[in-house]
Amino acid sequence: MIAALAGGVGAARFLRGLVRVVDPASVTVIVNTADDDRFHGLNVSPDLDTVTYTLAGAEHPEQGWGLAGETFTAMDALDRYGADTWFRLGDHDLATHLYRTRRLDEGATLTEVTAEITAAWGVVPRVVPMSDDRVATRVTVRRPSGEIEVLSMQEWFVRERANPPVVAVDFAGASTASPGPDVLRAIEDAETILVCPSNPVISIGPILAVPGIREALIGRRERVVGVSPIIAGAPVKGPADRLMDPLGIEVSCVGVARAYAEFCGTLVIDSGDAMRAAEVEAAGMRVVVADTLMRDARVAAALAQHTLNAVA
Amino acid sequence: MIAALAGGVGAARFLRGLVRVVDPASVTVIVNTADDDRFHGLNVSPDLDTVTYTLAGAEHPEQGWGLAGETFTAMDALDRYGADTWFRLGDHDLATHLYRTRRLDEGATLTEVTAEITAAWGVVPRVVPMSDDRVATRVTVRRPSGEIEVLSMQEWFVRERANPPVVAVDFAGASTASPGPDVLRAIEDAETILVCPSNPVISIGPILAVPGIREALIGRRERVVGVSPIIAGAPVKGPADRLMDPLGIEVSCVGVARAYAEFCGTLVIDSGDAMRAAEVEAAGMRVVVADTLMRDARVAAALAQHTLNAVA
Repeated sequence: MIAALAGGVGAARFLRGLVRVVDPASVTVIVNTADDDRFHGLNVSPDLDTVTYTLAGAEHPEQGWGLAGETFTAMDALDRYGADTWFRLGDHDLATHLYRTRRLDEGATLTEVTAEITAAWGVVPRVVPMSDDRVATRVTVRRPSGEIEVLSMQEWFVRERANPPVVAVDFAGASTASPGPDVLRAIEDAETILVCPSNPVISIGPILAVPGIREALIGRRERVVGVSPIIAGAPVKGPADRLMDPLGIEVSCVGVARAYAEFCGTLVIDSGDAMRAAEVEAAGMRVVVADTLMRDARVAAALAQHTLNAVA
Repeated sequence: MIAALAGGVGAARFLRGLVRVVDPASVTVIVNTADDDRFHGLNVSPDLDTVTYTLAGAEHPEQGWGLAGETFTAMDALDRYGADTWFRLGDHDLATHLYRTRRLDEGATLTEVTAEITAAWGVVPRVVPMSDDRVATRVTVRRPSGEIEVLSMQEWFVRERANPPVVAVDFAGASTASPGPDVLRAIEDAETILVCPSNPVISIGPILAVPGIREALIGRRERVVGVSPIIAGAPVKGPADRLMDPLGIEVSCVGVARAYAEFCGTLVIDSGDAMRAAEVEAAGMRVVVADTLMRDARVAAALAQHTLNAVA
């Protein structure tokens, strides 16, 4: 059995490779839900959907999130009402949010609804939210005026394009949240636990902030292997640098190593970062060098195999 | 000032004619909301939307309800989840329901949200729900087995295509509902009150069932003029016959006259029904004969002018 901690696009691409080299039924993906929010009255779970759509082979190939061939008729029509439409939901994608919202309103848990949605897409790996409780990433920013303001993750990332300088990040609700019903068991039962190449601060960070999960990982540290999402001092995609740097985490595989060392025994870093292997080891981790830039599913599969081999 | 009691397609077509012959700003349309329901977690108000879209000139020209050029991407996508999609919401139309649902959740009244929606569509007449309280038409039917079952209006009309024989109709919540905030004043202040050519049982019936509205109409009876939705013993559109007959209302302009006589002084009947004028008068109403089949907006405008003249 394999457990994987996952955020959005980077994780999804890695997982698409993983299921080419292992039995998909052996995989449980534990997904960040601290980016979840309500838009237009609907419950949106960006990372769950990115993982699901990608494992279904239905993701938008360039942007990584959302669906291939998506249309935005309903959002365009919402503009008529002067509604805030900076978070744009595609017409196909809307069906997922309509379904999830109605099922949650009926009393289903997010874990249950996610199982229904992934089954509908024919996704074989188990995809589970880190928690059925509401956890919300809050990004504290400094305005040009010097004023401090707290934004939701999507306000900061989508509405404001990750521009406002970050002062702090916290995960509202995390301290009282419980791990999803099978999260701890998945970690405990797994032969290998993967930390996918995701944003350390706002994708992996919230998962670790749910009481019990970090402790479970620490207990399995020798079986935990991470993939650095930072290559040559920059994230492949997304705003990891704009979050790591102000929080005092070096924007490099070494910074990732220091952040993960407590619960993760091995880190896969990119070939281009080979000269920093000694520093990763100095942070207390074993190091594996591989091609981590997932240009396509074949490269992703090779990376997944390297990652599994690292603790085999 | 003109007040108009309205249901769906027939009323909307009549009103489109009316605003060609009077100042649109002088018109208040009081709309049935007992067909309102929740679909896919969204608050849907079929008659309010049909009136709004038609007055905006955006309605689907053949079917009368829904929007011209509509697409159904989100509904098709919902099929994946095995959701009940017999009540299909178009992608453009979804925006209206998303907006209304969110605003209601925020605490706005249906009257307020409807004013926002009509303003967004540039609709000049005031369009108001009969009530801000929930009233729900319930259709009691007899199954082939003899079993009695209570359906919502849309279950009976859309899901079951108005096929199950009707035993009774009632309006849940009506007895404790209040008229919308300006409904009674609109009736009291109007020079003329129009009863649009709508289903007497389930479009006009619920409006009359809200305490205070029927009484207000009775007080203005000489200024109330109705248009028979029944021509030559059959409804122009919709299932009025399947509701009137089992409830003991003759499916004819005479049946309509008897149902309306208490609160409505004058009835406009179709030229093809001229031979029944004496029976309408015997029911206690003045009668006006006109071309009531609204083939286009020009005919609708002429009908509206005839109707206004009837009490001028």
